[in-house]
Amino acid sequence: MRPVVESLEESRIREVANAGMGRSDVLKFWFGESDEVTPDFIREAAVASIQAGETFYAHNLGLPELRHAIAGYTHGLHPQQPTDHWFDRIAVTSGGVNGLMLASQTLVEAGDEVVVVTPAWPNLVAQPQIMGARVRTVPLTVAASGAWVLELPALLAAITPATRMLVVNAPNNPTGWTLTRDEQAAILAHCRQTGTWILADEVYERLYFAGDSANGAAPSFLDAAAPDDRLIVAHSFSKSFLMTGWRLGWLVLTPALTHAVGKLIEFNTSCAPVFVQRAATVALQRGDEVTPPLVRHLQLCRDTLVPLLQALPGVTLAVPRGGMYAFFRLEGHPDCLLTAKRLVREAGLGLAPGSAFGPEAAGWLRWCFASRDPQRLVQGVERLRAWLEQDLPPSTGSAGL
Amino acid sequence: MRPVVESLEESRIREVANAGMGRSDVLKFWFGESDEVTPDFIREAAVASIQAGETFYAHNLGLPELRHAIAGYTHGLHPQQPTDHWFDRIAVTSGGVNGLMLASQTLVEAGDEVVVVTPAWPNLVAQPQIMGARVRTVPLTVAASGAWVLELPALLAAITPATRMLVVNAPNNPTGWTLTRDEQAAILAHCRQTGTWILADEVYERLYFAGDSANGAAPSFLDAAAPDDRLIVAHSFSKSFLMTGWRLGWLVLTPALTHAVGKLIEFNTSCAPVFVQRAATVALQRGDEVTPPLVRHLQLCRDTLVPLLQALPGVTLAVPRGGMYAFFRLEGHPDCLLTAKRLVREAGLGLAPGSAFGPEAAGWLRWCFASRDPQRLVQGVERLRAWLEQDLPPSTGSAGL
Repeated sequence: MRPVVESLEESRIREVANAGMGRSDVLKFWFGESDEVTPDFIREAAVASIQAGETFYAHNLGLPELRHAIAGYTHGLHPQQPTDHWFDRIAVTSGGVNGLMLASQTLVEAGDEVVVVTPAWPNLVAQPQIMGARVRTVPLTVAASGAWVLELPALLAAITPATRMLVVNAPNNPTGWTLTRDEQAAILAHCRQTGTWILADEVYERLYFAGDSANGAAPSFLDAAAPDDRLIVAHSFSKSFLMTGWRLGWLVLTPALTHAVGKLIEFNTSCAPVFVQRAATVALQRGDEVTPPLVRHLQLCRDTLVPLLQALPGVTLAVPRGGMYAFFRLEGHPDCLLTAKRLVREAGLGLAPGSAFGPEAAGWLRWCFASRDPQRLVQGVERLRAWLEQDLPPSTGSAGL
Repeated sequence: MRPVVESLEESRIREVANAGMGRSDVLKFWFGESDEVTPDFIREAAVASIQAGETFYAHNLGLPELRHAIAGYTHGLHPQQPTDHWFDRIAVTSGGVNGLMLASQTLVEAGDEVVVVTPAWPNLVAQPQIMGARVRTVPLTVAASGAWVLELPALLAAITPATRMLVVNAPNNPTGWTLTRDEQAAILAHCRQTGTWILADEVYERLYFAGDSANGAAPSFLDAAAPDDRLIVAHSFSKSFLMTGWRLGWLVLTPALTHAVGKLIEFNTSCAPVFVQRAATVALQRGDEVTPPLVRHLQLCRDTLVPLLQALPGVTLAVPRGGMYAFFRLEGHPDCLLTAKRLVREAGLGLAPGSAFGPEAAGWLRWCFASRDPQRLVQGVERLRAWLEQDLPPSTGSAGL
């Protein structure tokens, strides 16, 4: 096999999850997924479609009805964008991750240089690597508060005319860091100068708690960019509509790319199932019944979990502005992969190790707070507290665990 | 965008289908898809899963139950293979096409040489090109009967130690050509010498009408290869289980690749929806209720269509041994894209142009005979016959149509 494929890292989150395989007593907060089933009316739309016999191939770029619904949804959030061509700028993809991969396939030649802001979920680094790119990471830095912050001048200095693509995920998984509008404007202006494409992973756009924007959502590159800017924005039904397992997302493209992305969809997955697209269409049409209550609930989860964690000895974290993760440093436990495995085995607590998201996050842990019942979060903190109290400094003998 | 992506050809089949957009009177035989809805009991399994709330992420490589079912199915068809590790050799993919793309991502570096036997569906050539490969095609040749045949020495001569991968689709879309066991053995022996990977697209394995094999299926590389041969076999639920729109397939891998393919699935689509996998599991468990009657019906369709076509003036075609296509040359109509568009507009008949599958098939047309009602095929031939009778030799004026 290709050396680059061999060198791609196995998910460290999965490695931790494997350590808890077959244990029903583990409180699992390791994956980026709510434990809430997709709402009934969305599931019913899929069932009706299956029962009606919609089991045939569909258009590469998605059902026109769904593309129109996405265009309307996007325009509603970003009215600054001109109204023409919205429909033509939408491509339905088999998950947000699939949209991001299609973006790399569209833009990245072997040998190209790609800059990725980290920590970030590992797929963002792996995808351009699969296409043969040289990936350069620009790490966020940690403020005294435990908040991760962008050193804007360092990022801009890293983006040169040799940089084919910048990949940035904000609101960020795992850190909760969010770009400001001014930062987005500065990045966009710089990338116009260098001719660099921006691939913006904005799947957490709606999961935003700062309350400082007119649309309630996090700042988006779509608020700053013109339709013909070198920008691709990736979205997903997974997080904002409780549809992780459906594998559906979309890209917002500059119109000149849509045709090419349609061809690449043909060669990658051909299309998404019609019945999945019907469910997504209804999810958008009745989105007000899903996303706003979900965001309120996630804020409650965040505000339940974060103060309890902050009160633990050795824990540092800032309140995340967006996303669905509490990302915290645990003093005295620098090997977070080992820590996460020990927490599973010794405390029945499933967290993701920070090192899964970049070496700069070693010593950190990610806790997904998207929990139907916030009491599970309280229980989890209790397990962590008890474990920390009992834990002796790791001996040399346990280092090989 | 990347030059190679820009240069990828838009599907010529879609171009023809667009010419018939909005016309309900067209008899459509252009896509590789039956007009039969997925059987009830398969759809019911998906509905039950959705209603039970299985709307979460799944394992990258597929549900263990489904992988076991696929392993059992594959072992049943190919008992020559040793029984150990069958489960570990199966990866569930988001469609057959997705499996083929993952194979290219696993094996093909930019600059690698890839050999593809053509005519073939265009995705097989496009996928390695997307990965940056130089693709060399080895065309089948046409016998006097109209049958497409492999010049084995020419193929073997084209495969050198510089050839990273051979891609071969047999039973073949569009020609119905099928590899013999002897040819497979010779190709395998040669590729062992050159160190070349074989990517075998065997999605039409079960749609085989020759009746000369113990398992009823077409010859497979899995009958000849050892588990550690450089071989990837791609399969799909689409054709043999009437599940085109579900987007589910699988790869049979040499065990050393499975882990890498699992990583690549994470970075491409993460997983297939659980409810789709539940439907596929039931499809395999009760496969005897689907595939054998389907194959008998397709044989009836083939035996209805082919003699009628053969009786038309200017038509040359041989009886296809496998697949679900009649592929025929139409004398006096060398521009088959133009012919296909004219047939849509002037005769209400939807066929695929041969040139979609390789330049060597210019002047040919593909007719998918997977029709629930064979009378539709008879009607279609009648439309073609009437059109041929009325058709004047194309004037210069009509060439721009």
